[in-house]
Amino acid sequence: MSIITLTTDFGLKDHFVGALKGKILSEYREATVVDISHHIDLFNILEASYIIEAAYANFPKGTVHLIGVDAERTKENRHIAMQWNDHYFICSDNGILSILIQKIVPQKIVEITIHDRFGEETTEMDVFVKVAAHIARGGLLNVIGREISEIKKINQLQPIISNNNATIKGYVVYIDHFGNCVTNITKRLFKEIGHGRDYEITFNNKIIKSIKNGYSDFKIKEGFSLKDYEGEKLALFNEAGFLEIAIYRSNPSTVGTARSLLGLKYRDAVSIVFR
Amino acid sequence: MSIITLTTDFGLKDHFVGALKGKILSEYREATVVDISHHIDLFNILEASYIIEAAYANFPKGTVHLIGVDAERTKENRHIAMQWNDHYFICSDNGILSILIQKIVPQKIVEITIHDRFGEETTEMDVFVKVAAHIARGGLLNVIGREISEIKKINQLQPIISNNNATIKGYVVYIDHFGNCVTNITKRLFKEIGHGRDYEITFNNKIIKSIKNGYSDFKIKEGFSLKDYEGEKLALFNEAGFLEIAIYRSNPSTVGTARSLLGLKYRDAVSIVFR
Amino acid sequence: MSIITLTTDFGLKDHFVGALKGKILSEYREATVVDISHHIDLFNILEASYIIEAAYANFPKGTVHLIGVDAERTKENRHIAMQWNDHYFICSDNGILSILIQKIVPQKIVEITIHDRFGEETTEMDVFVKVAAHIARGGLLNVIGREISEIKKINQLQPIISNNNATIKGYVVYIDHFGNCVTNITKRLFKEIGHGRDYEITFNNKIIKSIKNGYSDFKIKEGFSLKDYEGEKLALFNEAGFLEIAIYRSNPSTVGTARSLLGLKYRDAVSIVFR
Repeated sequence: MSIITLTTDFGLKDHFVGALKGKILSEYREATVVDISHHIDLFNILEASYIIEAAYANFPKGTVHLIGVDAERTKENRHIAMQWNDHYFICSDNGILSILIQKIVPQKIVEITIHDRFGEETTEMDVFVKVAAHIARGGLLNVIGREISEIKKINQLQPIISNNNATIKGYVVYIDHFGNCVTNITKRLFKEIGHGRDYEITFNNKIIKSIKNGYSDFKIKEGFSLKDYEGEKLALFNEAGFLEIAIYRSNPSTVGTARSLLGLKYRDAVSIVFR
Repeated sequence: MSIITLTTDFGLKDHFVGALKGKILSEYREATVVDISHHIDLFNILEASYIIEAAYANFPKGTVHLIGVDAERTKENRHIAMQWNDHYFICSDNGILSILIQKIVPQKIVEITIHDRFGEETTEMDVFVKVAAHIARGGLLNVIGREISEIKKINQLQPIISNNNATIKGYVVYIDHFGNCVTNITKRLFKEIGHGRDYEITFNNKIIKSIKNGYSDFKIKEGFSLKDYEGEKLALFNEAGFLEIAIYRSNPSTVGTARSLLGLKYRDAVSIVFR
Repeated sequence: MSIITLTTDFGLKDHFVGALKGKILSEYREATVVDISHHIDLFNILEASYIIEAAYANFPKGTVHLIGVDAERTKENRHIAMQWNDHYFICSDNGILSILIQKIVPQKIVEITIHDRFGEETTEMDVFVKVAAHIARGGLLNVIGREISEIKKINQLQPIISNNNATIKGYVVYIDHFGNCVTNITKRLFKEIGHGRDYEITFNNKIIKSIKNGYSDFKIKEGFSLKDYEGEKLALFNEAGFLEIAIYRSNPSTVGTARSLLGLKYRDAVSIVFR
């Protein structure tokens, strides 16, 4: 009896998310359904990709992740289900799983082929729910699809490593609720390329000289308290393992944010320069 | 052990929704509670009415739908519970169930009469929760209320059919998260009046010549791909059965929306003209 | 098998809340998790404090309330767990529980001391989840912490009572989804100080002469209906027991709000003047 998570761009005002949960419970009354996000930017595959990658590891193995972003089935975009790292992902084959398969080889991928078992009024979500309930109950992927070996990849905005390993150049790929800027540079890549060398982080003519272990990891000068560091810029690897440019106690209406204080925006470049 | 759904205008910032769920779990620990929407426009009965109508059929029969929109009990607005199409609805008698009862005759309606069993500090939601838990446990409506035969109807914004059945004139009654415009013209009405005749859809001096089967249901010209159709206007019957004027891959910050591209707004007229 | 509630400033766009629920279910598969709010103003302890106080009593005794607001563990802010009024609260010792402990003496408070049992990558939420699951399963506080007797208090914005008990001067401490203004003046304080005397409520050169029992508690003049009172200002004690300055059928886009109609803002003074 697995957990089913939901990641969509449906928003929470309309009935879409409630309807999706109603479909799941109609199909599989015992399901434990957990929302990851319903506020993915509309049709934004990169954003969905990041959110899924950042969220999945918090769930037990066997969890089924249903992704309702750009999910319309077209000639170009098949519907797929993937077993990967003992988790299951159901989505459109639109590149959304690229970040995952670049890290670990999938255990199995199928193209979902059960669409013709349904009536004319069937929606994408009806099919996804059927597949999710099947897998959550312990069903096999082969029963609902045909095994395939390749899925679509998006390589947009991969970090670029200079020839002599002197620099990793990444980008801001996500701005979180606090206004902090998540880049596509992973801790793993930083360690692989850096090999313990000294470094500076540069962006927008600004420099950060070290990566902290936490948001409040400041060496507090005598006579000062942590409160005096509010608004300071910092870099750290976030819980999902990505380099983040943050503001200590970032708040758009008071302290300020990476946007207001540093001018850092979605897709801006952020580099790590080794010495 | 039925499901209890929640549709309110409470928003998600305050403690209201959490408190409501706490009340339900205090009363009925095994309840499965599902949010439909908490972002109904404040006191907007029409919007709540559309959302409930669009959502209910996704849930199993026996589901209890609690509606916390304009729920204060006044001389004019009784509290009611309705059994309809094997679903249950608990709300204020403010017209919110009009769309449903225009489609199918209710199985039973009661005016809720248990208010005097509670103390002075009791709120609307305490009463609704008591009734919802009672019904979800399989209790009878007569135990919590007095049977009535009539409830308030709102006929605002019903589509108008011209004398000779030449035109159905409807309105935009809801704008969804994608910015697409839902009208009050149902597929059933379109078929009844149209009888297979040719038609055009008109609004704001614009014309759409056909109703698609899906958002990407374009005849793609040679040398073009689906991507080239982003921003195209289209009409389709949405999952809830209502005519929708949409933009292919609608997105306010990139492609544009029915509002920005077509000037279509809440309550604007949309007509189907038969030939 | 207790309920675990969540109150955070994480927002709902990012994966943070989904990840937190994933952690809880990984630790304790049978947990019933209920969201109170994830839209607390960033790092705003006062707002979190009010929301927790307003929400807790709706849950059964034994409920575990996890508070993820300003939760980073620093030298100044320990992590604590408190048993109070037969509920449990897990949070940072940043003053967030002040409102509660001013009302009722805690049954037990511990400083959480299990951090060193975890690896380097452990986050605040990993620790909170471990503690929450432990308590929800019926575990003792002493197992996860060291008993302490004092926690941080914030006395900001306590109502001020004039020397001769002639006036209670409070402040707007929260503005709800409807735009209504919640003050920090409780019904209990009003009764204690007022002793049944006549009173007026004053703010911004405006006067309200009575406290209503409900939003629609108007004496309707002959020839008028309740609808004619839309936009009227009123005062009442809200469900959580706090004095609220409200607008009947408040709605920013139609009727107006306390802000637009009365100029009332966050932190503005509201007084009860007795005669």
